[in-house]
Amino acid sequence: MEHVMERIRTVELAAHVGQRVHVAGWLHARRRLGGLTFLTIRDGWGLAQVVAEGEEVAALDALEANAPGLGVESVVAVEARVTLAPRAPGGLELVEPRVEVISRVSEPPPVALNKHDLKASLTTLLESAAVTNRHPTRRAVFRLAAAAMAGFRETLLARDFTEIQTPKLVAAATESGANVFHLDYFGRDAYLAQSPQLYKQMMVGVFERVFEVGPVFRAEPHDTTRHINEYVSLDAEMGFIQDHRDVMALLRDVLAGMLAALRARGERELALLDVTLPEVPPEIPAIAFTEAQDLIFARHGVDVRGEPDLSPQDERWLGEWAWEAHGSDFLYVTGYPTHKRAFYTHPDPARPAYTNSFDLMLRGMELVSGGQRLHRYEDYRAVLAERGLPLAPFRDYLEAMRYGMPPHGGFGLGLERLLMQLTGLPTIKLVALFPRDLTRLTP
Amino acid sequence: MEHVMERIRTVELAAHVGQRVHVAGWLHARRRLGGLTFLTIRDGWGLAQVVAEGEEVAALDALEANAPGLGVESVVAVEARVTLAPRAPGGLELVEPRVEVISRVSEPPPVALNKHDLKASLTTLLESAAVTNRHPTRRAVFRLAAAAMAGFRETLLARDFTEIQTPKLVAAATESGANVFHLDYFGRDAYLAQSPQLYKQMMVGVFERVFEVGPVFRAEPHDTTRHINEYVSLDAEMGFIQDHRDVMALLRDVLAGMLAALRARGERELALLDVTLPEVPPEIPAIAFTEAQDLIFARHGVDVRGEPDLSPQDERWLGEWAWEAHGSDFLYVTGYPTHKRAFYTHPDPARPAYTNSFDLMLRGMELVSGGQRLHRYEDYRAVLAERGLPLAPFRDYLEAMRYGMPPHGGFGLGLERLLMQLTGLPTIKLVALFPRDLTRLTP
Repeated sequence: MEHVMERIRTVELAAHVGQRVHVAGWLHARRRLGGLTFLTIRDGWGLAQVVAEGEEVAALDALEANAPGLGVESVVAVEARVTLAPRAPGGLELVEPRVEVISRVSEPPPVALNKHDLKASLTTLLESAAVTNRHPTRRAVFRLAAAAMAGFRETLLARDFTEIQTPKLVAAATESGANVFHLDYFGRDAYLAQSPQLYKQMMVGVFERVFEVGPVFRAEPHDTTRHINEYVSLDAEMGFIQDHRDVMALLRDVLAGMLAALRARGERELALLDVTLPEVPPEIPAIAFTEAQDLIFARHGVDVRGEPDLSPQDERWLGEWAWEAHGSDFLYVTGYPTHKRAFYTHPDPARPAYTNSFDLMLRGMELVSGGQRLHRYEDYRAVLAERGLPLAPFRDYLEAMRYGMPPHGGFGLGLERLLMQLTGLPTIKLVALFPRDLTRLTP
Repeated sequence: MEHVMERIRTVELAAHVGQRVHVAGWLHARRRLGGLTFLTIRDGWGLAQVVAEGEEVAALDALEANAPGLGVESVVAVEARVTLAPRAPGGLELVEPRVEVISRVSEPPPVALNKHDLKASLTTLLESAAVTNRHPTRRAVFRLAAAAMAGFRETLLARDFTEIQTPKLVAAATESGANVFHLDYFGRDAYLAQSPQLYKQMMVGVFERVFEVGPVFRAEPHDTTRHINEYVSLDAEMGFIQDHRDVMALLRDVLAGMLAALRARGERELALLDVTLPEVPPEIPAIAFTEAQDLIFARHGVDVRGEPDLSPQDERWLGEWAWEAHGSDFLYVTGYPTHKRAFYTHPDPARPAYTNSFDLMLRGMELVSGGQRLHRYEDYRAVLAERGLPLAPFRDYLEAMRYGMPPHGGFGLGLERLLMQLTGLPTIKLVALFPRDLTRLTP
């Protein structure tokens, strides 16, 4: 069949009621009802229902007779007329179809893709991700991820940030003590970057305001619902700040921009997944680390004062409090103890045992870490000596500090963790296209 | 000094003539001339000239007397009045300054950053990239890279492509025989992805149209001006094509969008680097591989007919011909021999020894490779068997093909190679922020 008319996407059908159109996609479902045959076509964006009757059904049957099978997931092109059909999904139906087969599939896929809920074990979902990611509820997650990335970039570009791509192959496993992957680089030791932290700070010296979207690698041997070993990090860093509060204000706007992008570009996907996005308040409430511990003691009778960090239970309690006291899904906790944060964290000048740092919690779960960084060369030398860290692996990083750096800070946000929290999926492995975990290097 | 007024960027000064403004940045240069002191301030976007006279000079001198040095690259904030000054750079000058020191630098940087031309060896430029990337001509290159990425994404988003991020840690070194980096992944063999090729094809089954911007890794032991071992690949892949010509039309539009973004966002940088961007013709001329060999024989008397590939000299000759015959900086060469292209390349149905593939040349140098891919499961099984390749490492990839794939194709474009050709810099190492080559893992 020659297609004289241009193919349209299924999500564009409403603009063509009464016209004949050309759509194409996967044969998502087919069923017979009386003398009618219903086909559901899934293209890259949505679904369309096609109804065949009389000779059209005979023509469909002939397509099957000519060659083995025309099973679901076969790729087809359809020319048909768009009609209003209040009881059809989306209120539209394609009638008087002419169907052409592009790729035949005769075996059923490993998991039924045309049920509203995808019924399969986590293992099957992940092992057959090349196919299970086609299910509308799966791909909706990844389309939301794309919208979130777009919102992140657009918000920062509008604020004169410059995008950078920093090396993932690095010479030293230096940054924060996290486990790193090691490899042989032409006879030398190399490591996979666990974050773009040091590079994005160096680039503040060039562009002042930078961001990066890219993979980071953590060789942590944890098998939990919150860990994967390769994830997408959304990083930003900016110069000429007063302190971490400027970074918190920026992050607030970036999140608002990302959620606006999700609403604007992900409307169908949010509806399909039944996701209600949180609201970002004009100013996200903030509580100091030590006050948060006091509050937990006062409200729950559990004395965590003096603990060096907040536990997941502490974070849940604080999330509840943020909602009750401020009506906010988001909460900043600021001023974490200096000895628990990375060496580059700027101390609070008024209370040097605590830092100009923050974590952002969404509904009681940590989502973003950030803060003000040291910017004086002498401060870096002092803190590295204090912590017993060698200078040599930081030579280039220190060179950037030595030749003039403004006060600066930034944050890093894990894309998959954000998606996990927004969608409520039970494990982060379901919000990565092809997750990497302790046992999984494929697909 | 309390800044009651909001800081503006140096590139915004023209909108504030006659007003007092607050700018901040690095002390790019200072010189005395008669009783005047001239300061050049460099912020993340441009330069501004400040003139101090009389008591203002005394105030500047006092800043130096109070503490050691106020050398170039010190970070400063300046409040001053914007005046028109036809002979100053940019036609503007900041007068009546009040200067505050934010970070002092007393040592000169490893390379003078305030000369119009950056005079240093390649080794010094790369070894001190954390500082040398601050030079206006260096950072202009990287700002153009950012504009190119933005143009790539915007063009594809406008065509309903979905952004994906595919894994860089993979289980098998399978794709094209290129050298790959190996690492230990929790006791198993893993490799760094040499391209997102197999994953982007699998994702055509989900979204139809996908793109990715991300790092790729090549363990090729070449030390040339055209090779680095980690680079940024701009990849796109789309389904429901007729053949490779649909991909060529897409790539033409993507390039036009990227060049438009460079013009719109990189005006200052293009002027600074004295770069004239090529024009993308409405239709890029194309020549078949065998015809190109005939043409080289006819024009240059060198018989390359029967050679399996084009040499760099052949490509230069073809570039000259494209300019002379078509007035085009760009040229497609199509129909490369089947046995020289990757196994997934779709053969030309009319001439199966040749492929539905293309290379795009810019001014006689290869810039992009692409083509139509196989999409039938049986074709993949046949070609893998023919080439003696095992099926097991391709299990997931083949699963995507087994359960229905449309005809599809795409391309991959190296960001650094594009920037190298546009800027005319002598080595690709100068268009990567922190290049990775045979001997270089730092900075």
